[in-house]
Order: sequence, then C-alpha cells, then structure tokens
Amino acid sequence: MEDPGLPPTGTPIRAPTGTPLWTPPGSQRVSPAAERLLHILLDDDSRPTPTIFTEMDTLQSEGGELEWKETARWVKFEEKVEEGADRWSKPHVSTLTLHSLMELRTCLQTGGIVLDLEGDGLPQIVEEIVDRQVSDGLVAPDLKEQIIFVLLRKHRHQTRKPIHQSLAGIGKSSSASAPNLAQSRSMNDISDTPSTDQMKNKFMKKIPRDAEASNILVGEVDFLSKPFVSFVRLAQATTLGGLTEVPVPTRFLFILLGPHGKTKSYNEIGRAIATLMVDDLFSDVAYKARDREDLIAGVDEFLDEVIVLPPGEWDPKIRIEPPKKVTSAEMRKSVLNLNELGQMNVSAGAGGEDEEFPAPHELGEELQFTGRFGGGLWLDIKRKVPWFCSDIYDGFHIQSISAVLFIYLGCITNAITFGGLLGDATDNYQGVMESFLGTALAGTVFCVFGGQPLIILSSTGPILIFEKLLYEFSKSNQIDYMELRLWIGLHSCLQCFVLVLSDASYIIKYMTRFTEEGFSSLISFIFISDAIKKMVGAWKYYPINRGFKPDSATSYRCDCLAPDQASALGFNVSAPLGDENMTLLFNLTGLDWSQLGKKECVRLGGLLVGGSCKYVPDLALMSFILFFGTFSTTVALKKFKFSRYFPTKLRSLVSDFSIMISILVFCGLDLLLELDTPKLLVPTEIKPTRPDRGWLVSPFGKNPWWWYLLSSVPALLVTILIFMDQQISAVIVNRKENKLKKGCGYHLDLFWVGVLMAVCSLLGLPWYVAATVISVAHIDSLRMESESSAPGEQPQFLGVREQRLTGILVFVLTGLSIFLAPVLQYIPMPVLYGVFLYMGVASLSGIQLWERTKLYLMPPKHQPDFPFLRHVPLRRVHLFTLVQILCLVVLWVLKSTVLAIIFPVMILGLLVVRKLLDFMFSQHDLAWLDDILPEKDKKKKEKKKAEPESDEEPGSSAPSPVKIPMEALEPLPLPRCPSHSQPNL
Amino acid sequence: MEDPGLPPTGTPIRAPTGTPLWTPPGSQRVSPAAERLLHILLDDDSRPTPTIFTEMDTLQSEGGELEWKETARWVKFEEKVEEGADRWSKPHVSTLTLHSLMELRTCLQTGGIVLDLEGDGLPQIVEEIVDRQVSDGLVAPDLKEQIIFVLLRKHRHQTRKPIHQSLAGIGKSSSASAPNLAQSRSMNDISDTPSTDQMKNKFMKKIPRDAEASNILVGEVDFLSKPFVSFVRLAQATTLGGLTEVPVPTRFLFILLGPHGKTKSYNEIGRAIATLMVDDLFSDVAYKARDREDLIAGVDEFLDEVIVLPPGEWDPKIRIEPPKKVTSAEMRKSVLNLNELGQMNVSAGAGGEDEEFPAPHELGEELQFTGRFGGGLWLDIKRKVPWFCSDIYDGFHIQSISAVLFIYLGCITNAITFGGLLGDATDNYQGVMESFLGTALAGTVFCVFGGQPLIILSSTGPILIFEKLLYEFSKSNQIDYMELRLWIGLHSCLQCFVLVLSDASYIIKYMTRFTEEGFSSLISFIFISDAIKKMVGAWKYYPINRGFKPDSATSYRCDCLAPDQASALGFNVSAPLGDENMTLLFNLTGLDWSQLGKKECVRLGGLLVGGSCKYVPDLALMSFILFFGTFSTTVALKKFKFSRYFPTKLRSLVSDFSIMISILVFCGLDLLLELDTPKLLVPTEIKPTRPDRGWLVSPFGKNPWWWYLLSSVPALLVTILIFMDQQISAVIVNRKENKLKKGCGYHLDLFWVGVLMAVCSLLGLPWYVAATVISVAHIDSLRMESESSAPGEQPQFLGVREQRLTGILVFVLTGLSIFLAPVLQYIPMPVLYGVFLYMGVASLSGIQLWERTKLYLMPPKHQPDFPFLRHVPLRRVHLFTLVQILCLVVLWVLKSTVLAIIFPVMILGLLVVRKLLDFMFSQHDLAWLDDILPEKDKKKKEKKKAEPESDEEPGSSAPSPVKIPMEALEPLPLPRCPSHSQPNL
Repeated sequence: MEDPGLPPTGTPIRAPTGTPLWTPPGSQRVSPAAERLLHILLDDDSRPTPTIFTEMDTLQSEGGELEWKETARWVKFEEKVEEGADRWSKPHVSTLTLHSLMELRTCLQTGGIVLDLEGDGLPQIVEEIVDRQVSDGLVAPDLKEQIIFVLLRKHRHQTRKPIHQSLAGIGKSSSASAPNLAQSRSMNDISDTPSTDQMKNKFMKKIPRDAEASNILVGEVDFLSKPFVSFVRLAQATTLGGLTEVPVPTRFLFILLGPHGKTKSYNEIGRAIATLMVDDLFSDVAYKARDREDLIAGVDEFLDEVIVLPPGEWDPKIRIEPPKKVTSAEMRKSVLNLNELGQMNVSAGAGGEDEEFPAPHELGEELQFTGRFGGGLWLDIKRKVPWFCSDIYDGFHIQSISAVLFIYLGCITNAITFGGLLGDATDNYQGVMESFLGTALAGTVFCVFGGQPLIILSSTGPILIFEKLLYEFSKSNQIDYMELRLWIGLHSCLQCFVLVLSDASYIIKYMTRFTEEGFSSLISFIFISDAIKKMVGAWKYYPINRGFKPDSATSYRCDCLAPDQASALGFNVSAPLGDENMTLLFNLTGLDWSQLGKKECVRLGGLLVGGSCKYVPDLALMSFILFFGTFSTTVALKKFKFSRYFPTKLRSLVSDFSIMISILVFCGLDLLLELDTPKLLVPTEIKPTRPDRGWLVSPFGKNPWWWYLLSSVPALLVTILIFMDQQISAVIVNRKENKLKKGCGYHLDLFWVGVLMAVCSLLGLPWYVAATVISVAHIDSLRMESESSAPGEQPQFLGVREQRLTGILVFVLTGLSIFLAPVLQYIPMPVLYGVFLYMGVASLSGIQLWERTKLYLMPPKHQPDFPFLRHVPLRRVHLFTLVQILCLVVLWVLKSTVLAIIFPVMILGLLVVRKLLDFMFSQHDLAWLDDILPEKDKKKKEKKKAEPESDEEPGSSAPSPVKIPMEALEPLPLPRCPSHSQPNL
Repeated sequence: MEDPGLPPTGTPIRAPTGTPLWTPPGSQRVSPAAERLLHILLDDDSRPTPTIFTEMDTLQSEGGELEWKETARWVKFEEKVEEGADRWSKPHVSTLTLHSLMELRTCLQTGGIVLDLEGDGLPQIVEEIVDRQVSDGLVAPDLKEQIIFVLLRKHRHQTRKPIHQSLAGIGKSSSASAPNLAQSRSMNDISDTPSTDQMKNKFMKKIPRDAEASNILVGEVDFLSKPFVSFVRLAQATTLGGLTEVPVPTRFLFILLGPHGKTKSYNEIGRAIATLMVDDLFSDVAYKARDREDLIAGVDEFLDEVIVLPPGEWDPKIRIEPPKKVTSAEMRKSVLNLNELGQMNVSAGAGGEDEEFPAPHELGEELQFTGRFGGGLWLDIKRKVPWFCSDIYDGFHIQSISAVLFIYLGCITNAITFGGLLGDATDNYQGVMESFLGTALAGTVFCVFGGQPLIILSSTGPILIFEKLLYEFSKSNQIDYMELRLWIGLHSCLQCFVLVLSDASYIIKYMTRFTEEGFSSLISFIFISDAIKKMVGAWKYYPINRGFKPDSATSYRCDCLAPDQASALGFNVSAPLGDENMTLLFNLTGLDWSQLGKKECVRLGGLLVGGSCKYVPDLALMSFILFFGTFSTTVALKKFKFSRYFPTKLRSLVSDFSIMISILVFCGLDLLLELDTPKLLVPTEIKPTRPDRGWLVSPFGKNPWWWYLLSSVPALLVTILIFMDQQISAVIVNRKENKLKKGCGYHLDLFWVGVLMAVCSLLGLPWYVAATVISVAHIDSLRMESESSAPGEQPQFLGVREQRLTGILVFVLTGLSIFLAPVLQYIPMPVLYGVFLYMGVASLSGIQLWERTKLYLMPPKHQPDFPFLRHVPLRRVHLFTLVQILCLVVLWVLKSTVLAIIFPVMILGLLVVRKLLDFMFSQHDLAWLDDILPEKDKKKKEKKKAEPESDEEPGSSAPSPVKIPMEALEPLPLPRCPSHSQPNL
C-alpha cells in the first residue's frame, strides 16, 4: 500500500519504533524526542533560562513603502493587534491549527538554522544569515540584496497611547489617518539604541526584568519563488534598534519570507513559532539546543503535549480566556522522566483524573509534641523572635489603614455590646468602661507579644454566660463576686501555664476540618443572629404606629398628666412611688406637667396619655434602611473588585475600603435626614462603671479562705473554655490556605492569654480570648495578591500581610476611643449591626460546609465541579453535610440554654462525633470531605508502604495503577520533508 | 538522514505531495482526504443521517466476574462517569491528546473493519466479527472462544436514580455496596428486548428520536498479546439487548481489546473514536463510508480541523464548558468546497477574523414601497390574516398568564398616572375614568385587528403635553375644547389614512440603529425619571419630622384651633374664607374643633397648630422601602434564572413571574405593617369624570365653522407625532433580534391608530399610540427558549410567543378593573413605581448605546469582546457614543420644555444627524456601529461588484483577500503502521 510515486525524500527524524499499543509491558523506553530533551535539559539545569517576550511583525506596504508592522505579541498569552480597531486584543490562549504546527516543523527541518550567532546590529546579523543560506544553496545569490533590503525595512509598533492623546484623537475626522499617530515607527538601520518611544512604553512593566526577546518576521514578497526561512539564536542578547516594541534585547529571530498569495498561512506559522517560543519547555530547548534535531525534538515534545479540541464541539472563533492556573514548567519538565510521563500524558486528556487521595491537611511542626518541659513554648519564641522587626515594618502599607479602621469598628462595637451585656449581668461591676479598657489592654499586650499577632482578642459569648452565672451564684451565696472572680482568674492562669509547659496544644492536631468548620460556622451564625436580633430589637424599641392616618394627626398626641389629674380623669396611676419620688412629687406640685418629657414624666410618677405615646415615628424603618444598606453596600463594594469598570488599582482600593465607604455613606445619610437614630456612645471619663469599686481588686479579705482553693474548680471550666476557644481560632487563622509564612505560636498564644487572665482579674476587667470572626476578618482585610505579571495571567493569592502593627493600632485606638467620642457619636448603631452582619456572612463564605449545604438545593447537573464531587458519591456528601448540620443544630440549642457554659466540652463532643464518622464513612470519602485523623493517616501510610496497591476502590477503572510503557507515548511520526534534501546547520 | 534501521513497513495513506508552502499559486488541488469526502458526502446527500448517541463501556472485574461498565457517553458533548462519586460528570468538551487520535488512526488502518454487517443479536454479530478476523489472520483461531466470551459479558450502566431512591441510599453505611443499587445490569446474551431499566431511563428525553447508538467497548485481557480491534457498521440499526443504557438501536460497534497494562491508553483511544462518532462530519462519513480508506479520510479531515491548545497555556485538567454556539455541520460541510476551505481553515486559528462587514440590518419586505394605492395595507392584511387563528391558540401557555399580569399592571399604572395628569391638565374633561375606558377600548381594538398585536397602546408624554397646550389655548380663546379636539382627531385620522394609502411608512427604512436607540433610550429614561420623581414626590408628600426626639413626644402635637381661638392666640388666620365657607363656619360655631381631622379643619377655616402637623411619620421611608424593594427583588428574581439552585423549570417559572412575586411580596409586607401608604385607587362607577360632559362629543354647534377647517393644522402636528411614535415603536418591536415569524404590518397598525383617533375623539377619550417601553416589556415576557436538547447544549432563543390573546386579555382586564377595585386597592403605589423603574431599566439593557456608554468607564483590557471593538478604533466608538449621548441630552432638554410638542420633529432631527455622521465616520465604522443607510448600502454593493477588493482598509494585513491553495491545507502526513502489513477489509 506504500505510495509508489513519491520516494521518501524528506528526513524522517524518528522512524516509528515498534507498535505503540502492544509492546510487552516492562520494556519502557523513552521516545527519541524525550531522550534528546532529557539530555539537553537536565545537562546543565543550573542556569535558569530568561523569560521570552515574543513579537510578531508582518511585512506590509504602507503608501507604496514596505514596512514591518507589529501584529501580535506574547508574554505568556497571545495579544493580537485588532487591525480595524487599532488596539490590542485581550490576552488569550493561542489556538493553533495542527496544520500550522506541521508546517512549522517542516520549516525548521528545511530552513536555515543558525545557533549562537555573534553579531551586533541588525544589518550585520541579516547579512550573515543570508550569506549562510546562499552558501548552503538554499537561496539564489542574486536574491541576497533584495532579501536584505526587505529585512531591514523599518518597524512600526502598536503602542498604547496615554489616555489624553487617545481622547485628543477622538476629534480626528478620518480613521485612516489615525494609525500614524497611534503607532511609533523606527528605522532600525539608523539607530542601535532604544528610541524614546520604546523607553516610554508602559508595557515594559508587564515583562519580567530578565526577559529577552524573540522576534518573528513574517511576510510575502514577489521576488521569491520558494520561502526563505531562518531560525537564529544570537550568542548574546542584543538590542537591535527599533526591532522590538520594548527595549528588551533580542535573542531569537525567526524569519519567514515567502512568495505571494499565502499571507494567512505564513501568519499562522508565525503564530505557531511564537507560541512555541513562549512555551516554558520549548524556550528552554531553544536556549540549549545544540543542533536542528534538538529544536525539532522540542516541537515533537510540544506536539505530544498539546490539547486537542474536536471541531464540532468548539468554535475556533472563541478567544479562550487564560485559565486561572496552568501546569508549571517544572511539572512538565519532571514529566519528561520515565514513569510520570506515562501517567501524566494519558491522564491529561481524561479531563482531570486527580490523584486518588487529596493532599493531606498539615498542621506543621508547630504542634509536634516535643516531650520536653516547655519545649513547645521555647520553640515558639525561637520561631517568632526573628520576625519581630519585620512584624513592625511590614505593617507600613495603605491596606493596613483600611484593615485597622475595619477591625477597630468591629472591636469597639463588640466592646460596647458585650460591655453593655456584662454590665446588665453583673450589676455594672463590669460595664462598658471596663470593656473598653480591658479590650485595649489585652489586645495590645497580645498583639505585641503573642505568637500569632493576627489573632484579635475579644469578649466572647461563653465567657459572658459564665460571668453571668458566677455573679448570680455569688450574689445568692453572699460571696464577694470580684474576689471570687480574681481567684478563678489566677487559678485559670496557672492552669494555662501547665497546659503551655506540657505542650498540651498538640491535641489540636485531632481537629479536622469537620470540627473546625463546626466551630467557626457556629460562631458565624451567632454573629449573624446577634446582628439580626439587635435589628429586630430596634423595631420593638421604636414601635411603628401602624394605624396612623395622616389626616387624623389632630387626634394623636401624648400628654403628660400629673398623678392627681390622672386619677381625677379615672386613670389608674399604677406607677410605684417610692419614698424618694413622693418627696419629689410633693416638691414639684407646682410643676407644669405638660412641659415634661416622656422619661421625666414617668420618673415623676406622671401618666402618659394619648395615641402617640407608645409609638416612635420613622426610627424603626430608618434603622432598617441603615442596617440593610450598610450590609448590602459593603457586599456590593467588595464584589466591585471583580467588575469590569475602572482600573484595577482603583477597584481594589474601593474593595479594600468597602466597609469604610459604606459606613461613611450611611452615616452621611443618617446625618442628612437628621433623625434621632440610636448612636454609638462611648464613655468619656475614665472611672469604673460602678462607683463602689476601684481599679484594683484585692485578693484577700472578703471571702472565706477555702474559696481561694475551691475556685480552682470553676477555673478548670474557664481554662477548658479558653483553651478550646483560643486554639481553634488559632487553627482557623493558621489554616494552610492563608499561606502564612512567619509561623504560628500556639503555646506562646496560650501563655499570654493566661497572663492576661490574671492581669484582667486583678484589675477587675473582663476576660479575653481569641475571637474567630473578627480574627478571620482581620486576615481577610490583609490579603495580598500578586499584581498580574504577564498580560492575561490571573493574580495569585500571595499570603497575608503578617505584622503586629494593625493589631496594636486597633487596640490603641480602642483605648483612645474615650477621647474620640465626639466623632464616634455620629455613627448610628444600625450601621454597626450591618457591619456585624457582614462579618458573619463573610466568614461563612470560605467554609466548605456551607458550600456543601448549598448542594442540597442544586440539581446535580448544576453543581460546581468540586474535587470531592468527582470522587465521593453525592449521597455520601449529603450524609456528611447532614451530620455536620445536625451537630450544629445541637450546639446551637445547647448554646441557647444554660448549658452554654459547657460550650468547650461540646467542642470536644465534636471530636468524638468525628471519631465515630470513621465507622460511617470510608477513609477514602473522609479524605475528600474532611481530613484523615493522625493515627489513621499513619496507618494508611504504613499500609501503603507494605502493600502498595491494596487501597484501590473496588469500582475503580484501573485494578492496578497503570504504568504505561513509553512506547504508548511515542510522539507522532512526523511529516517527511520532500523538497529540501540538505538541511543547513 | 533517513533512519536506516527501520524499513517503512506501514501503509502511508497519502505520501506528502509537494511542499505545502511554496506551490505556485493558482494550482489549487484538494487534498486526497477532502476529495474522498466530497465524493461520498455529496454523492447522495438527500438522505440525512441519524444523530448518533455514543456509549463507552470498559471491561472491569467485579467480584472476580468480568463485566462491561459504562464509563462515558456522548450525545454531543462528553459525560463521564465519576468513578468514586458514582455519578455523571457535567457535559464538557472532549479534550483529546493528539497521541490517542494517532493511535486510533493506526487502529483503523490495521484493525478489522466490517461495514454493513447483517445480523441481529449480539452473539451472532460478535461471532461474525471474530470469525472474519480469524480468517484474515489477525487473530489466532484458539483465541476466538475467549474473545467471544469476553465480548458477551453483561453490561452495567450508570443510570440516574430518582431522588427518593438516592435519598434512601444516604443511610447505607458502606459506599462500596452502593453502586450495585445505583446501576442496572443486564445480560445481553439473555434478552434481545430492552429491559425495563432501559425503558425507564429518563435520559432518553435528551436523545433525538431518530438517534442510533454507537457502542465503544474497550478493555484489557490477559490472553491477548496484541490488540483486537474491530470497527463494525451494521446494515440496520438493531437493539442489542442491554448493550446500551437507553433503548436506542445500535448501528456502530468499536471494539478494542488489548493485552494487560495499558488501560488508560485504551480508554483514550475509546474516547477519541467516541468523539469522532458524535462529530457531525465524521458520523456522516461513518454512515456513508465505502471502505477503510473513507474512514481514515474522515479521521484526517477531523485532524485537519481540530483546534490545538498549547500545553503551557492551558491546564488539561480543566473541563471545558460547552460553548454557546459551535460551527454547524452544514457550515463545515460547505467548507469542504475548494475556496472556503482555505479561508476557513486558516482563519480558524486566528482567533476569529470575522468578515469585514457585519451582516446588514434588514427591515424585510414589509417596508418596500409598493407604488400602488394602498398596496402596503393590502399586503399587510394578506400577510396577517392567515395567522389569525394561530394568533389565538398560540396564546394558551402558562407564560401568557405572567405576561398578562405584568403588562396589565403596567397598563393600569400608566392609565392612572396619565389619567391623573390629564385630569389636572384639562380640568377633568378627561380624567382617570376616561383614561381607563379609552385604554381598554383602544388596546382591545388594536390587539384584535392590528398588524402587530404585540404592540401595546398607551397614553404617551407628547400627547399629554399637546392636550395641555390645547386646553389652555381653547380656554383663553373661549373655544370649546372638546369640539375642537374632536375635529383635530378627525383630521388626524384622515391624514393617517392618507399616509397609510400612500405607503408612507416605508421611510422608516431610514431609521438606523442610531435613531432607534436614541428614541428608545429617551423613552426608557423618561420612564426611569418618572418613577424616581414619583418616589421623591412621596418624600415631599409625607415629610419626615427630622428633629423628632422620642423623649419629647409630649411636646409634639397637632391641634385644630377655631379661627376665633386662633386669632385670640395671636395667630394670623390667613385661610381665605369664601362665602360658602363663611356660611358653614357660622353654622358650625358650636363645633368641637379639636375633634376635626386635618383636612376638615383646614376646609372649615380652622388653624392647625403644633409641631407634628407638618409631618407624616413612617410613610416616606416605607414608600422608599416598597419602591426599592420591588425593583431590586424583581431584578434579583429575574437573574435567578441563571443561578445554580433548583431545577431549570422552577427557576424559569420564578423568573417569568418575578414581577408578580415581588409585587405580591411587597403588598404583603405593606399589609403586614398596616401603614397607610398611598394605594392604587381605580374609579368604581362608570361615568365621565366631569359631570357636565356626556359620553359623546357633538361635532357641531359650539365653535365657529372655520375652526372645523383650521383644526387641520394642529392635526398635522398630532399626525406626525403619532406616526413617528407608532412606527418607531413598531420598528423596535419588529427588530430582527426578536425573531418574529408572523410578520409585521406597519400600514395596518397606522390604519387602526387612525381609526381609534377618530373614535376616541368622538367619545371624548384620550388618544392612544404605541408605547415603546411597555411593548418591549410585553415582548420580553413572551420570550421562548429551546429546552436544551443534548446535555451541555445551551438553550437557544427561539422567538417570541406571537399571539393576540395576551394583549386582548390585558385590555379587557383593564376595562374590568373598575370592578376589581376591592382587590386592587391593596396595591401600594410605590410598588407600582418600582415596577415602572424596572420596566425602564430592563428596556435599556438590550440597547447597544448603553453598552457603549459603559465602555467609557472600562479600561480597554477589561472591555468585553464586542465585535465592533475588534474592528473600529476605540476612540471612534467613543466619539460615536458621545454624539448619541449629546443628541439624547438635547432631546431631553427640549422634551422638558414647551417644545415637547414638536417631539416628532426632533426625531426627524435625529435622522438628519445620522445623515451628517456619514461625513464624520467611514462607512466601515458605521457598518459596525450602526447600519448603512439604504442608498449607501446600494452604492456599496454596486461598488463591490465593480471592483471587488477596493474596500479594504489601508492598515489591513491582507492587501488582497488571500486565496490559499489547497496544498497549504494538506492534512497531516500520517503515521505509518509498522506491524500489520495487510489491512483487513
């Protein structure tokens, strides 16, 4: 069946070796192309190759004169010049045709290849290239001058003009004359130094500093009857005048001049080589290639890895947006190794067969049990001290301002809320004033000395409930509350020290995602429900007069009647009049009751009579508008980052300051309407809320001595509570996803929390522990993202701005708030509740439990492509979610009762539930939905070592992991090149 | 350089002919593959080939027993069985490796090909296939039994269980046991009839009725040392028992059994052939192939069209979502023709080089100038009459209910608003009652008899202004308004008839997108601004007591003081007391003034004294909440259609009824709060608003006779106004994008509007004309979309539910509203203003002007990929937009003055501006941004004919359209097959 008419004249690089599909297993050989590449790439891998910037220019005639016009460029993705629109297209994935790649391969096989050409200045280089081709017989000598003439024509680049120029251009009446203005020309045969146009080009910012250029020149001319192809690598990267739009030195040149009539085909070949040049692997090959065969092996390797889309399922006109992530060059290089190559290459097309188990969840060495006394604490200190200076100067960034303001508002709202509640619960032994001072003191100390300064200390619900119960207990048993509390604090501090010194924090390792998510969802729900409760409270506090008819305004009023008047009118004066009031009353009989305010009237025993007494107009609705407006504006502004409008920097500024902006907007609205909405009121004088207590609590004297010992029992409860609350929050903050680089310090954190317990108890201030939601908000407001480098590359999350400055500032500001009262009094409370709601909702968003809960409402075909959905049956996922939700419900119910005090024990309960899940779910499912518990993990690893393949699922398509012999991956047998018999090298 | 070690043993199908790049132009030859395909595809193209459903099963051992397990399926896109997750993946574009395609090609070259095999029953077919391979020496005879045994193993399919079963499955404790339940097994060697599992499979709905199946069987066995490959086409499609998951008869079989160790490689080959089988072009080839070479030509053609993604720019693990649109099979077949093949294939990779000019905007033959007296009207009637019955029964659909309710609410709100305004303007000669009756009458008549029943007639702003000016004129000149108006109406009616009979509507052809968008944006802005004005009005109508302090409620009151009391207290009683009132006053001296309502008090000359008189609590804020809430809820619910939650049907139901739902929600909220918000009040008694006028206006008697003639002058203005308003709205409704199928009737429309002018004038009802915004809303609420057929295919917009029923119902309901008053009185006006706002905003969304305006705020790199942005420089786009915006501003300013009456003339002004744009912009730019004016269009076409290539842009990369010789498109030289020397056919 061999075609007899045409003898194989080309140079088949690799004759197909063996039959790919049925080589006996075990005989693994590398394809010749891969072998070649391994050789050159791994030979001297020490020197990293520069990044390549590629520019493609095509030959065009402008007013009868030939010139090279830039038509596309690549940093990583393709940007095309939109001819008519005179602008750059958006960066997109280069979609090539198989055909152009094959033609390119032929070009490289038959054209001139010049490696490591010495030369500076384009004229010299061009002459050298053409001379070589002439001497190799590829080009007729009489064409030399013409080719050189064409290659030295000037270059016109597509440069982005500044906006004022482009606006000025609006007035121009003819679109044809505009391009001249918009594009810069340069005569590369005149100057060898970069022109000002080149230097001023802002695109330079997008190109890495070490970059070198590859220039693709493609064009059709009439004097050639067969193409002139040349691939040149210069010995040194040289700036060749105006060849490139940016002042990047050129390292590679690809020239394709051909006879008339096939411009598009030439362009496609140009695009193919350009795409290859920016391919990480091929550019490496291009730098290290020793001869033509190496280059062709590079093309073959590329072809072997390309992804093919069937023509009937994809429209080639669609420009594909750059993906979020691509396989890294390192990964692809390692793929060149024997075994992996087989696996990877085949799985590539399978639409993402991930590894059977996800990457294990790691807590790092910080939680290793050292076995030494205080070993963990010592390691923590050793780990954190070197960062101390950078912890300060890393804080100097504009983002910090927004973070400080945001967290500050969260903290003072929390301080006021909890202060108010504590005041109620303890008859003002601890009130708003104590709450402010305590927050400022504890927070500052922790942020300065703590192991993880991103954690924000705050009052938390369980502590509040504990204090309430304790106060009630001491009141009914006639025990001095403050003294008892002091002893509990001291004991608890001591117990914390024991936990720290015995490295007890290592048990946090047993907290899997299940526990962590349960805890943080619960805290988020508490935030959300508190915010809504507060809001609903406003409706009760400012009742709306529902039956009000505007016309009957005359019949609504509220009069204050003196008690005697009231009884005379038949009203039953039921206000209890104490002795004091009676005296007042009799002193004030001459009073004009109708002039009294509502509160005064009630205080003096008067009676409020009238239809409008019970109601407060507008405030409930206004509060709702402020609350909901703040929340939704914040959400909208956060999302604004991803909108198409305005430059990226402005958008991220708006997004970073979204909370500030919405607070300001709604404070402004409130100010504008001048309504008497409830405002943030902070105490202005530094003195204890209750006048009969001082700033120091004396440890002895008021209670019997045995209470000093007995208080260690409730202290134990407090310790467990603090331990769990603190460490789980720390685990959440230190999550791997946050990419923290400065390490954490669980033991150090706990140490300082213990110290602060004692100090706060002594000063009669509330106790503080890590607050999950605010800490997460703190981290979120300090996220760093890479400025997108290559056009089209997605910005990557780099980590969190880890420093102590924002935390310290927040708490110093909290302390100073007492002096900021005149400003703060303009902030309506509903606005702050809106911020609370936002914090709660935002901290839910990163939680997988929440994502899984949403799956209940989605038909399977609309569900997002979560990795676990590819590996775990949906009903198992639902079951797992259901268990978590049930746990949450139980926790919620318990939290709402007196049992809230054993909250930490309930978290321990979660650990037990998680343990039980081991019996309900396979380890495979749990690995995807949760993490494997430490001992199971170990067992798994051991088991794997012992019998490597036994852990496969029964339904899995591959009964044993498939090792594919290299023959199966043999690159394509490639086209023979028929016309040029002698390649030139 | 030829590799000497390995002789070319394969069968190179086509030796590479000539060098692709430098064949002299003109010698265009088709590649052998394309030639073959042209031959078989165009041979008998009359019989369309069925759609193919492909199922891929792999051989697996389940509990020691071999069975075929379904692992993927294709209707158009690939759906994969997620092994671990035991479910179908989302449909996605099959990404293949080049390698697997090459291996597949080798398989087809060397394996067994059996075309048109007669046979029913799998055992018989399998035996036949194996026998043939044995006799061809491809398989050793002793393996026959084993191969047959393997191929006849039972098949296990992945079927979607009903939700209750899957929920029941949640409780199962082991994930390993679940798959048995979830999947149906069948022994295909037992039954030949489809099993109940097959019959019940709901997936059947997704497969076209005429579909035939192709079954891909892929597996590894230990008894083979080289693969067993067979491609079978049956003579008739036959149901082969449980081979396929759905009861679709099988036509094709592809079998690949190979030695152990390469499952993944086999799977990839299976995926490659499966993807080919669902490719429109290849499936055609497969049906019509005469021999092996045809099939291979099909593969080559496929390879020639594939789209290649570079490995460094795309992660193969990403599953690509099906695109909105793919190149159709027809398109691709036509591409096989000579010239286009070149263009297409090359431009494919270029990332979408569209044609140089967009498709011209067409108004269809409806607006041709017939040249005959009344010719256009006659054609309109001829066109519309055949549809009359379907115009009724097409209306019976659930969507109609939502459309009727939505438009009904829009209409009555409009009727009430304009009725109120008209009442004010004409001293109640025309009031709300007239507005209701007129709307009902005119609307019903137009919807029953009109040319385009989707148009909704309504009062419009210009008419209102005209009436106002007319009334003022007649009042000051002592002319009877109603009689004058009647004559104007009659004249105008006559003038309309003249326009109809002279086919004047054809001038609408000169309205390009520029004019159309200018007009409809203006109307949308009027809607939006009216809605907001109304809302702001509520704030003035219900002033908020800003300084209110809840505590001082006692000092706020509103008392009604009798005039004498008031003056006694030093108040200046300034209320003018008419004689009537004085009488009343003296009659009522014994009155208890403090019991009077506010209005009564003022009416009787009392004085309202007190801080709360001026204010109305809560209503302003409540109105705002209702207004904004209705608007944003509607927007959110409309968008809900595109969310991931709930099944598609529920979502589109919610989306269709979004306005109803939000109206109900906010009416409910209003009801709940029991606040006295302004409600929708419709008149309940049928009588003229002004008692001194009857239902018929007499044409004679009140005005001097010469007014009967003179009134033709203002009538001319009204006629122009009506003509422009009506016809532009009609053009917008009849836009090509709406895909209307029943044609339009511009002349017929105008005829009925004229008739209604006369009738309404006679009855003293307001005049009606097409209302753009409501008509567009009407169309939007009747959009039809295809139910997505193949999984992954996007639903397509099919057109609008064209019928007369919704319109008729809307207006009948409007008439009946007088009896619906008890229900309608629960609807607060702010809710209706919210609906207005939504209508205005929604009608802006489809307008390109709006999209272009948004471009001002977007940095170029974030701008969407609009076609015009690829072809027109951004500054030209901005300039064009600026001109449009300036025109709008001028129109807006004029509209706000008395000049509003010459509104229609201003629209004519837009036409002039558009004409001037021809001097400012090139025709190329205008073609993309607007439409070419008719005469220019003609000229352009002529010019093109004369000198075909002269219209190229100077900057274009191709100085002449490139015709690429076929050699450039030569498919890949393909691998030689080394091991099997004799193909079996």
